[in-house]
Parts: sequence; structure tokens; C-alpha cells
Amino acid sequence: MRSPLPDYMTEVLEACSDEDDGELAAYIPELAEADPSRLALALATPDGTRYAVGDADVRFTIQSISKPFAYALALVDHGLDAVLEHVGVEPSGEAFNEISLDPSTNRPLNPMINAGAITVHSLLDADRVAAGFAAFAGRDLEVDEQVYASELATADRNHAIAYMLRNHGIIDADPHAVVDGYTRQCSLLVDVGDLAVMAATLANAGTHPVTGEQVVPRWVARQTLAVMTTCGMYDAAGDWFTTVGIPAKSGVSGGLIGALPGKGGFAALSPRLDRHGNSTRGVRIFERLSGDMGMHLMEVPPAARPLTHGHASADHDGDGETESVYELQGSVDFVGMERLLVELEQEDEGAREIVLDLARVHEVRDVGRRMLLEGARRLVLDGHSVTFVDPDDMLETGDAGVIDVGDGPEAQVMRERDSRP
Amino acid sequence: MRSPLPDYMTEVLEACSDEDDGELAAYIPELAEADPSRLALALATPDGTRYAVGDADVRFTIQSISKPFAYALALVDHGLDAVLEHVGVEPSGEAFNEISLDPSTNRPLNPMINAGAITVHSLLDADRVAAGFAAFAGRDLEVDEQVYASELATADRNHAIAYMLRNHGIIDADPHAVVDGYTRQCSLLVDVGDLAVMAATLANAGTHPVTGEQVVPRWVARQTLAVMTTCGMYDAAGDWFTTVGIPAKSGVSGGLIGALPGKGGFAALSPRLDRHGNSTRGVRIFERLSGDMGMHLMEVPPAARPLTHGHASADHDGDGETESVYELQGSVDFVGMERLLVELEQEDEGAREIVLDLARVHEVRDVGRRMLLEGARRLVLDGHSVTFVDPDDMLETGDAGVIDVGDGPEAQVMRERDSRP
Amino acid sequence: MRSPLPDYMTEVLEACSDEDDGELAAYIPELAEADPSRLALALATPDGTRYAVGDADVRFTIQSISKPFAYALALVDHGLDAVLEHVGVEPSGEAFNEISLDPSTNRPLNPMINAGAITVHSLLDADRVAAGFAAFAGRDLEVDEQVYASELATADRNHAIAYMLRNHGIIDADPHAVVDGYTRQCSLLVDVGDLAVMAATLANAGTHPVTGEQVVPRWVARQTLAVMTTCGMYDAAGDWFTTVGIPAKSGVSGGLIGALPGKGGFAALSPRLDRHGNSTRGVRIFERLSGDMGMHLMEVPPAARPLTHGHASADHDGDGETESVYELQGSVDFVGMERLLVELEQEDEGAREIVLDLARVHEVRDVGRRMLLEGARRLVLDGHSVTFVDPDDMLETGDAGVIDVGDGPEAQVMRERDSRP
Amino acid sequence: MRSPLPDYMTEVLEACSDEDDGELAAYIPELAEADPSRLALALATPDGTRYAVGDADVRFTIQSISKPFAYALALVDHGLDAVLEHVGVEPSGEAFNEISLDPSTNRPLNPMINAGAITVHSLLDADRVAAGFAAFAGRDLEVDEQVYASELATADRNHAIAYMLRNHGIIDADPHAVVDGYTRQCSLLVDVGDLAVMAATLANAGTHPVTGEQVVPRWVARQTLAVMTTCGMYDAAGDWFTTVGIPAKSGVSGGLIGALPGKGGFAALSPRLDRHGNSTRGVRIFERLSGDMGMHLMEVPPAARPLTHGHASADHDGDGETESVYELQGSVDFVGMERLLVELEQEDEGAREIVLDLARVHEVRDVGRRMLLEGARRLVLDGHSVTFVDPDDMLETGDAGVIDVGDGPEAQVMRERDSRP
Repeated sequence: MRSPLPDYMTEVLEACSDEDDGELAAYIPELAEADPSRLALALATPDGTRYAVGDADVRFTIQSISKPFAYALALVDHGLDAVLEHVGVEPSGEAFNEISLDPSTNRPLNPMINAGAITVHSLLDADRVAAGFAAFAGRDLEVDEQVYASELATADRNHAIAYMLRNHGIIDADPHAVVDGYTRQCSLLVDVGDLAVMAATLANAGTHPVTGEQVVPRWVARQTLAVMTTCGMYDAAGDWFTTVGIPAKSGVSGGLIGALPGKGGFAALSPRLDRHGNSTRGVRIFERLSGDMGMHLMEVPPAARPLTHGHASADHDGDGETESVYELQGSVDFVGMERLLVELEQEDEGAREIVLDLARVHEVRDVGRRMLLEGARRLVLDGHSVTFVDPDDMLETGDAGVIDVGDGPEAQVMRERDSRP
Repeated sequence: MRSPLPDYMTEVLEACSDEDDGELAAYIPELAEADPSRLALALATPDGTRYAVGDADVRFTIQSISKPFAYALALVDHGLDAVLEHVGVEPSGEAFNEISLDPSTNRPLNPMINAGAITVHSLLDADRVAAGFAAFAGRDLEVDEQVYASELATADRNHAIAYMLRNHGIIDADPHAVVDGYTRQCSLLVDVGDLAVMAATLANAGTHPVTGEQVVPRWVARQTLAVMTTCGMYDAAGDWFTTVGIPAKSGVSGGLIGALPGKGGFAALSPRLDRHGNSTRGVRIFERLSGDMGMHLMEVPPAARPLTHGHASADHDGDGETESVYELQGSVDFVGMERLLVELEQEDEGAREIVLDLARVHEVRDVGRRMLLEGARRLVLDGHSVTFVDPDDMLETGDAGVIDVGDGPEAQVMRERDSRP
Repeated sequence: MRSPLPDYMTEVLEACSDEDDGELAAYIPELAEADPSRLALALATPDGTRYAVGDADVRFTIQSISKPFAYALALVDHGLDAVLEHVGVEPSGEAFNEISLDPSTNRPLNPMINAGAITVHSLLDADRVAAGFAAFAGRDLEVDEQVYASELATADRNHAIAYMLRNHGIIDADPHAVVDGYTRQCSLLVDVGDLAVMAATLANAGTHPVTGEQVVPRWVARQTLAVMTTCGMYDAAGDWFTTVGIPAKSGVSGGLIGALPGKGGFAALSPRLDRHGNSTRGVRIFERLSGDMGMHLMEVPPAARPLTHGHASADHDGDGETESVYELQGSVDFVGMERLLVELEQEDEGAREIVLDLARVHEVRDVGRRMLLEGARRLVLDGHSVTFVDPDDMLETGDAGVIDVGDGPEAQVMRERDSRP
Repeated sequence: MRSPLPDYMTEVLEACSDEDDGELAAYIPELAEADPSRLALALATPDGTRYAVGDADVRFTIQSISKPFAYALALVDHGLDAVLEHVGVEPSGEAFNEISLDPSTNRPLNPMINAGAITVHSLLDADRVAAGFAAFAGRDLEVDEQVYASELATADRNHAIAYMLRNHGIIDADPHAVVDGYTRQCSLLVDVGDLAVMAATLANAGTHPVTGEQVVPRWVARQTLAVMTTCGMYDAAGDWFTTVGIPAKSGVSGGLIGALPGKGGFAALSPRLDRHGNSTRGVRIFERLSGDMGMHLMEVPPAARPLTHGHASADHDGDGETESVYELQGSVDFVGMERLLVELEQEDEGAREIVLDLARVHEVRDVGRRMLLEGARRLVLDGHSVTFVDPDDMLETGDAGVIDVGDGPEAQVMRERDSRP
């Protein structure tokens, strides 16, 4: 069987190919001469699969899509507080090339506008950028020397921004060196597959889905995705988040990435830009993907089945006493556990045996595990005995036996229901 | 057993009670004389449970927390496009009482700042506001006539805003009538339990978790939550979203709600406000909740188990042919299905029977269902026969039998694995 | 003989009549329906002559041209400091209807923009406005009730401004009452002759050139003219002052006044407005007047003759001693006196008689008088005797005789040169 | 006798010496270490006298006081229109170092803020600056190399501005070269005497009062003074113009110049600056000078004597016919002539002889001359014969005889009244 995903992605590209609004970025010849019909889409999943359709082998300069990754690297190197001293996290509602400094602190409002990105770059050195982007992409990235030279030659606004930043003490380094380095960072060559896997690394809590490397810690990925959510699409951030609902970043070459926490990274390429500087077809593609796949972060999925698959009171183990057996299913998460705790509130005090059967459970979230153990602790304190049936060791107890459910009380853990005496 | 949730919530309140920064809103006596030690927290879950601790019986005026709900009602009544003609969705990076009109269209930038909220109110009539808020809260809400009168008497800025809006043709109605109505809307009396259930209604895709009423359609809830995400906390929106990561809205009485899609609604009360106009302790409470419960929207959960619980090739039905049996578990969603499709790609063309056993599946997402059927369709086209074992009718086929997997090809659906001939 | 002035003024109108750029103010029907071909020009001189040509009998509403006069009245009633607490004097570089409040004090930046003018109006009462404007015009002015009603009905922006001003504590009064009164002030009916004489009153240091009434004190006229210079033409103030160089104010009816200190007042009418809201032909007319008449305030006149018409040493009175006789001419002002003092420095110490003959002097400025007396005092202290010949009593000594030239020393004053013994 | 002017100026310095508000400019060590007690005042008159008191021999860097002079040089070299394409003339109401670009054209709002001054400098070359400033000062000015180096090393904001200007196509040159040159321009060393004579050159219609060189044409001086009036004192321009009323420019070294058209130039030095960046004592000094000397441009002088000193009808020349003899005095200017024309309107048609005696006239303004000749022309056309008595050739006819008073009609010109037959 051939996976339907590439076919679906090709369909999406075709559906958006009639969109020909927008203009090529014109400030340097290399961008102005890009082929406006270029169209590509890639997806990288948390388990490391990569799909790419259309002009997937075309390499282009990463441009502003480098901003969230450089931000993530700066967070790793300097910590959150130190980076926040230099760059804020507030949406500016302004275009990418506005200076947008906080009027009280003179900090750039966020790392997704040029002023913020230049400041972030000043916190990194050239080797760190090269190594960090290589880790995100899973391969070394080359600089397009021609684009780099061309952009640097016309980088008046970025030079202005860098000088203003040094004037305000936001950056220390030589403005020319910073703009030079930032321009090199923006001139790294990528294809949509690279971008998808880079986005997937953020979406995957910082772990590269292919190499398995923890490129940035979990909190850095979270911080970066949050900033992409509110600031990634410049002055169209609200429009994007209401219609697409995916943390994203666009670049002037026509690239556009979306990173969906836990679900993977997407990347599109189409060089024509709308008035916000975002790829026109790229936006269309993501609107389609978000709608088709129900990936809007504010889209509430239909309620899952209740955590309790069944509840029976019976003498299951033939010891002459009726046990209260709860068969759990699905995800032991906050919502499910809250529901289960309400049910457990019905258990009168007494010495009844309570069995919590996790055989049908396929994931245990951290908050769910804590709620489950706290429920068990309270049952024990009420006089019950509690037994977890956990064939797949979802509770990560290692060996079957007893488990301390908090400050003393213990419960039994068994691998099979009928293995009990 | 007593549920640990109220105890946990009480712990959170206690942990935040040493925070005494911030100032009471001072512009009207009723707010200036509020008891600054008031502290309450409530939670409403999608299944209709409500927990409330602290000063849960204290009623206070809803103030700006009314904004997202009025926005939702206007969306219902007028549709998205008509509302967007009047109010944008872009974060303003400005304080709540800034005029913040879009320089090209004169529309208020978003419905969470006063200019936008006044515009939204002008799209509703008094009866609609009363009925709509009653539906969200699950009970009729009264107006605090004293606060209303006091606020109206000092509503110079809102009058200024309303006149400016009419000047720009954004509102048609009499500015005084609009401000009067808006002030009444802001003076509705609620307690934290009301707010939690109202937030839960948004988080529950528009369905009231207690009454079961579909208060607003799914798309309206999504749109409202998205706007809360980028604009709900005024000029601290980015700070809030990076640290707390929950769609939220604050009010000048010290109320603060968070709505977590699919997971429920939280509401806190503490009257002292920080410089952004957000409840100081309220922010602390939410930071704690978000951290403890892993509810930050950008927090990637640990990877769930793979969708494929097991795969075996065997002559299960004793007909002399080996079937390829995939035992699925957990959630049939995009990520899981993508993985499964990769596995199914290994199935050579041929006439083998493929069994997809959904007995351990506890939810099927829409995108997952479509991917599953498309996979089945391709297998059939490749010559395989495909059988779903679906004891709990997760595929919602109604009766067992055959299912059209798209444009002709069919698969078998059985309720039990061993019921096959 | 017929004075050439009206003919000249008619010529100016004709020369500008081919200019048909600009648009009628369209926000109320009364202005939108004005006859765009209306064209009038008036001049009022400090001695009370009034010339008016073109549509000089057409009455129109005074609109923003009322602003400097209301400002002058408020200065009279409250004093400079109190008015400055409410309204600044800084140019805003913004259009007439911008709010333009000082970000630190919330004061309107100046009294020529609407926010400032509304604030100024709030410092006056209706009777004061009526009486004050009557004094400036030399006749009672009526309100155009239709324009007033029409403007009030569409005064959303001014209401917005007034509410914002009260919000900031800049005005205390009811915003509606203030806007109502302000709109009445703007609806006063004038013709170009009225406006010319009103401007002339300011140009004449506050004294009405016809009635002779001191309508406002000298310092108020100076303050008002200074504010007109920097703020009178909104965001075209700099363009106007460089090209025309006359303190001025425009109104949306197409009126335009210029007040040239000491020289009189001009007023033009032509309803079509440029993008700054200033009368297109009005601006042309003033450019022509300024150029033809050399009235640009920054235009340096050709140097006048030196103050010393002649200097001779001779025994004029036949007493056997040579006197040093300085025949002065023209204006005894700073420049002339400075020059004379340099000459007097050549007078060696000694007991020579110094004669200062003012027979050809036609004005003595205050600073000139002080310099002249100080020079005389120093000559006397050096041992000289000093005699003023002052046939026309330019020194205002009343009787001839002796004059105390400062702290003791005295000089002689004679009415005729040859009357000395 | 010793001129009282230096004594007066010393008195002014002493009266202001108790003012010790303000702070030294601190951004470079050379300014931060200036002696804050430095205090100097100079005056240069149109006839070339220079007075200087206090620390008159202290040299300091000219800083922003160079701006109007560079602007004047650029106007000379490129013409008004070309300069206006690069820099506007509108007050910005902003501090000296704001970028303040016109939002529609990206031009700096005026040449007195840094963005405008840098743009102006880019229109000049180094030799032109050196030669032009030497012409204004009447001597070659040296650069303070230490201040220049120090300022250049910290010129981040100016570099930012220059890059932004090139980004907008306002300047073409290399931003570093422009800022380098501009910094050298600002580092020219002057004393208050230099500044006074430079200001006097502008006040003297472009002619250097000492060297007599026409440094810039009359229109350039007018344009420059007009821009100084509205923009010279940054965001205190309105405050300055209402209280002092003199075109002015301040610099960060504590220098402050005032140029009073036709009356001369003043310069003060005192290094402590107010929050607008203007010398605190310098402002006080000018307030005092303006008040004492009645030099506020909006101060209306007391009315001069009427132009007509006397009017008699008599047979002065004994020819048996009564002539109508007007003895004129003072200045033949617009105001005086308007008055005279009103009188001449009383002359019935007829063949009477009209004598206009200019013996007591000490200046004839251009507009007055035209009005006088036009009046004469009309009298001749009415049938009168007209005779000017003009002993000092105020009408600049050269020889006595006849003068064409316009399109044919002639009048007689005589040097003495009684020389007529």
C-alpha cells in the first residue's frame, strides 16, 4: 500500500495553486528573480517520518524563519531571564521591519520582529549559530553567499535598527558585526523538508524526531512555540491564530512553518507574499491543513470516552468478598481522572477492596498519575485496600508489588488481574 | 473518599495568599472599597462538575470578563464576516482602555480592548445580552445597580471611545445608549463558580457542561478562545501566554478566567491588580495551576503509546490463511494513524486479509477516521480484504457488516474478532 | 483720487481665481453646499480703515478662526498660568481634529487644534463669548442656527474629544454643554470685513482699530499672535510660516485671517480647502500679499538710514564754545541707538556740551529711549552737559526744562535749537 | 563715554547667574566635564559692532547650532525645491534626537532635528562646510578633534538615523561618511562672539555685518530664520516663541543663538541644559533680553507718528496758486502710505499742484515706494501735477527732474522745496 499522506499533500498544493495573489520580495535581485510558481509542502512527524511534495528539492534562504530557532538557542545559552532582559515577548501588532521597542525599557517587543531577532543574534556567536541550526535541521546548512552579500549590501534598515539597539544599550556588540552575522543566519539554505523537521523538533519538545538529539530543553521549545503563537505572523498574528490556530513563522523567501505541539512540523514554500510579508499560498495551504486535520489549537475534539470503561462490584477473585473493580481506558489525564475521582467519592468508607484495572489504558499523563495515586492514597486512608492491575506498567513501577501512594499508604500493583491470590 | 481536587485548589490559594502586590481599582468607590483579601478559585469540568474554594460565594461585577462572551454572542447573531467588519482580531500590545483603532480601517484592533468591546456590545440588544449571559452562566445574572450607576457616572473615557467609534462609522447607535448598555453588561454579578462554568462552556466547544445547551456553535467557541489567546490579557498577552499558556480574560474587579479547550474552565478572584490591570494573585494562581497540571498549551505531553499495540501474522480464524492483524489502542488520531499508515505501507500487494482490531481504541478523531478509511480503501484497491473488529462501534457504523471505505471499495466490520467464519 | 488699495486687492483676487484645487468641507450639508466660487478679501489697518473686495458681503460661519479669539478671552479672564495649566502652546504637527494631548500632562498641545479649543471654550461662558467676540468684531455677531444644529448633530469627534478631556481632568464641565457652546462659537456669522478688523485688533496690540476699545491687553495679543505663528495652520504651520510668514488662522468655511503686528489684519474667503483644511485660494492670496508687500516677518527690510543724520562740532549758540551736535532722524530704536552710542564713545571726557537734536526723529521706541537717556547719563557723569532738542516732545517730557537721566544726572530739554541762551 | 551696552549685558548675566537648574550633557566625557559655571553673552549688530561679556573667550563646540547654517548653505547650493524634497519645514513637537520622519514621504520633518540635519549635511561636502562656516563666522573655524572623536565613537543614534535615511532613499551617501562629516560639523569650535556674528548674518538678510560679504542670499536667510522660528527649540518651540519671540537655535554644549531680523544676533553660553536640551541659563538670558528690549516679534510697538507730518494748502512758491503740500516723515511703509492714500483721496479732481515733501523721511520701504508712486500716478491721471521734494534722494531717482510714476504719467522731483520756480 502506498501511504495516502503524500497524495493528500499534493492535493492541498493543487487546491491552492490557483491562488496567484501577492508579490515577490523585491529588495534584492536574488529574491525578486525567484520563480513565483515554486510550490512545496513538507511534513515531519514526531516519530521521524518526513513527507515532502512539490518542489521539495528547491533550496531557498531561511530568512525570518530562522528567528524562532535562534531565539531557542539564545534561551538555552543564557536562560530565560537573561534573554527577557534583552527582548520581550509581547506582540507588536506591527510589520516585521518596525523597530517596535518597548517605550519604557527600550527592549524590542519580541524576537520575531527584526529588532528582536538582531538582538537575539547578538547573544550567539557564529559557531553557535552554525552548530545550533545544524542540530535543528539534522544536517549542516550552507550559507547562500550571493543572497548574503546582496542582503548585506542593502541592509540599511537592519543597520539602523542595530545602531539604535546599541544606542539603547540593548546590544553591546559592533552593529555591523551583528548585522553581518544576522544576515548570514538569514541566508542559510534550506528546503521544505529541513524546515518541517526543524519545526517538528520544536513541536516534539525539543527532541529531534530523526536524530533523537535533545536539541533544546523542553521549556525552551515551549517558550519558543508560545512566542510563535502570539508574534510569529507579525501584524497578521491574530488573523492567523483565529483562522489557522497553529504556532507558525514565515520568511520573506516564501517559506512558512507551523509547529503543532506533539503532532509534528509542517513547512510550505511559495514565494509570492501578501501585504504582511507572509507567503500568500503558504497561508492558504495552512488554512486548508488546519481545517482538514482539525489541528486548530482552539478546536475542541469531541469528548473522548470516559476513563472508566466499566465498573463492577463482584467477587472477582473468588475470595468471598466483593471487590469494586474499575476498568480504566484511554488516557489517564486531568479530565478523565477528575471524572473517576467523582466516582470514587461514592465509595463509602470501609475496608472494601478497590481494583483499578489499567489494562486498557494507553497513556498516563503526569497530572493524571498524580491524581490517581492521590485518589488511591485517600482510599487507603479511608480503610480500603487498593490494587492496580497494570499489565503494561503504565505507572512505571518497574516490578509489580506495592507502591507508596504518598506519605505512607501503599497500594498493590499486579501485572494481571487474575494473578491475585 | 473525598475528592482531592478541592484540597488541591485550597492549597493553591494558600500558596498564593502571601502575594500582596497590586492595587485595587480606584476609579469608582465600589471597586476601591472591595475587600482586598477576597480570594476564590473555581473549576468547572466538561462533564459539569464544579469545584469552588475560598470566597466562592462572593459576588462581584464581571467587568471585562464579559467581553469574550459578548463577542461570542455577536458572532452567533451576525456571523464572522460581519463582526470582522466592525472589530479586528489583532493584539494591540496596549492597555485595556486605549482606543487602538486600526489606522487604515478605523476598526478597533480587537474585541478585548474597550473600543472593541463597546463596538461588540452595539451589535447586541439588552435582551440578547441578558439571555446570552444567562445561557453561558446557566442562570440569570443580576446587574449591580450601584456599580452600574457609579461606573456610568465616570464613564468619560468610554463615552469618548463610543463617540469616536460613531465618528468613524464603526457604530451606528447612540453612543450614550451603547455605553449605558455596555456598562450594564460589565455590571453583571457573578461568582467564581459562574465564571468557571462560563469559561467551561467555551472550552467545551460551546456546550454548557451543566445544562447541556449548545450556547454558541463550535466555531464561535474556537474563534473566541483564539482571540482570548492573543488579546485577552492586554499588553501582558505575550507574558501570560508564555508563562501560563491558557486562553484567558481578566476583569477590573479582580476576576480572571482561563478556558482550556476540552479540559474545562477555571476562574479566580482577587481584587488587587497589577500594572496591566490583571489580578496579581489571579495571575499567580494560574501560573501555579498551569505548572502543576501541565496545562500550558505549548507543553508537549510525553509521547503516547503507539497506536499499534500489536501486529501479528497468523491464521487467527483457522481458515488456513494467515491474516495480518493489527491491534490498535488509544486514540486514532493524526499522529497515530500516520504511524500506522507507514506500517501498512509494508503490506505487499496481494490478496491477504488485513484485520484492524479496534477493541482497545478509546477514541477516534475525525482526521484519524478519515485516514483509517483511506488506508483501508488503498489496501482493498491493492487486492487485500480488510476487516475492522470494532466491538464498541468506534467507527460509528451502526450495524456490523460492510463499510464503504470511499468511492466503491468496501471493508468488513465485525463486533468481535472471533465471530468471523 | 481713488485709493489704489481696493484695486490692488481686486487684482490679487483675480490673479488667484484660476486656482480651483481643493474640496468643500463635506461633513455637514451647509458647508458642502457653499458656493465654491465665493472669493473675498478684506484689510483693516491699525488706524481703522477697512477695505473689502469681492464677495465682501457674504456672511459665513467663523469656525476655527474663532479659536485664537476665544484663547485671547480666556487669557484675559484666567491669566496666562491658569490657561497654560489647561492647554499648551506647542505645535502638534497634526491635523486640526487630532486629539494631540501632551503624553505627560494630558493637556491639549495647543489651543488651535480642536482639543485645545474645546478646552479653552470650557473656560468661558456663553455671555463672555458673545460679548468678547462682539468686542473683537465691533458689532454683535449672530449664530447661524442651521449650521450650529447641523454641526452639533455630527459632532461625534468633538464629543469624543470632550469626554476624553474630562476623563483626563482637563475640563470639568459637562462635555455636551462644552461641545454645544463650542459649536455655537464656531457658528458665529462673520464677513471678511469682520475678520479683518478682528485680526487687526490682535495686530494692534489688543486695541480695536475702529472702536478704540482695548479688547484684550497687550500681552494677550502678543501671546495669541505667537501661538497663531507656530500652531495656526495645523500640520502646514511650517510651510505657511516659511512661505507667507504671517501669524494666521484658517477655518473650515474657507476663511483665513492674517494678523501682522503693528500693520493690520487681513481676511480672505474661498471655500475650497486643501488637504490640511486650509482654504486653497486663501493660501494663494496670502502668499501673494506677503510677497508683494514684503510682509514676511522674517524678511529683513533694507537698512534704514543711520539714526545720526549729521554730526557737527561748531559754536552753534555763539557762546564761544564748540558744541558737539548730533542731528538724529528716523526711529530711536535699539539698532539706531547702538550705533549712536558707538559714536558717543568717541566723545572724550571733558566738559563739552553735547546737543542731541530730535527734530527729525519720528518715533522713539521704549528701548531706544532708555538707551538714549543712559547715554546721556554717562555723558553727564563724564563731565559733559547734555541738551536734547526735542521740538515734538518725542521724549514725552511734557515741558521743556531739565530731565533726570537716571539716578541724579540731568540733561536739558529744549523745544527749539536756537532758543538756547 | 563708555557704551552702556556691555554693562547692561553683564547685568543680564549676573541676574541669571543664580539659576543653577539643569544638567550637563553627559553622553561624552568632554561635555560632561565642561565647567558648568561658564557664562557668556555676545551681541553683533547689523553694522558690525560686536559686544561680548562673561566667558567670551571660551571656545566650545557649536553642536546643533550648526544646523541652521548648514541648512542655509544647502539652500544656496541646491535651491529651495531640491532641499524640500529631502527635508520638510514642519515642527515636530519632538526632542532633538527623534527620527521624526514624515509618514507619507519619509522626509525628516525639519532640518533642526538630527535626522534633518544629517540629511542637510549629506547635501554638502567637507570643503563647502568649512568654507561656508568660515564665511558665516568671518574666520576659519577649527574642529575640536577630541570632541569629534568622542562623539563619533558614541554616535550610535546618529548612525541609526543615517542608515534609516538611506533605507528610505533620503540620503544617498555612505551613512558612516555622512555621520562622520556631520560630527565634524558639530565639533567646530566657536565662542559666543562668533555665534553672535553668525546669527547677525542671518538677521542681516545674509550679509555679514563685519566682512560685508553676502554669505547667503536674502531668501535663504528668510527661509532659515522662519524654520528657526517654528523648529529651532525642538519640543519647546512654542514655549520659546511665546515667551521670547525670537528665531533661535540651541546646542548641547550650552550655546544658544537668537537672530532678530534687521536688528542683529545674540549668543549665550551656559552648559547646563533643561529637559528639552536647551541651556537653562541661556533661556533665562534671552527671556530677559526679549523683555527688556521689546524684541518679541509679536510685540507691537507703540504706533509711530503718522507719515504725514503736516499738510497745508498755501501758495508756497508764490505763483498765485495754492499748492497742497504734504510733509512726510519717518518711514514710507505700508501702514503710513495707506494712511496717506486715505488723505489723498480727499483731493478733488482738478489741476491743483500736489507737493509731497520727503525731507523728513528717513526710510522708504519697497512697498511704500510702490504705493507712493501709484498714488502719484492716480493724482496725475486725475489732472493734478505732482512734485516730490526729495533732498536726500530717498526715491533713488538719481538726478532731480521727472519720474515716470507708472505707464506714462510723470511727476517732478526736486531736491529742495524752494528751488522751484
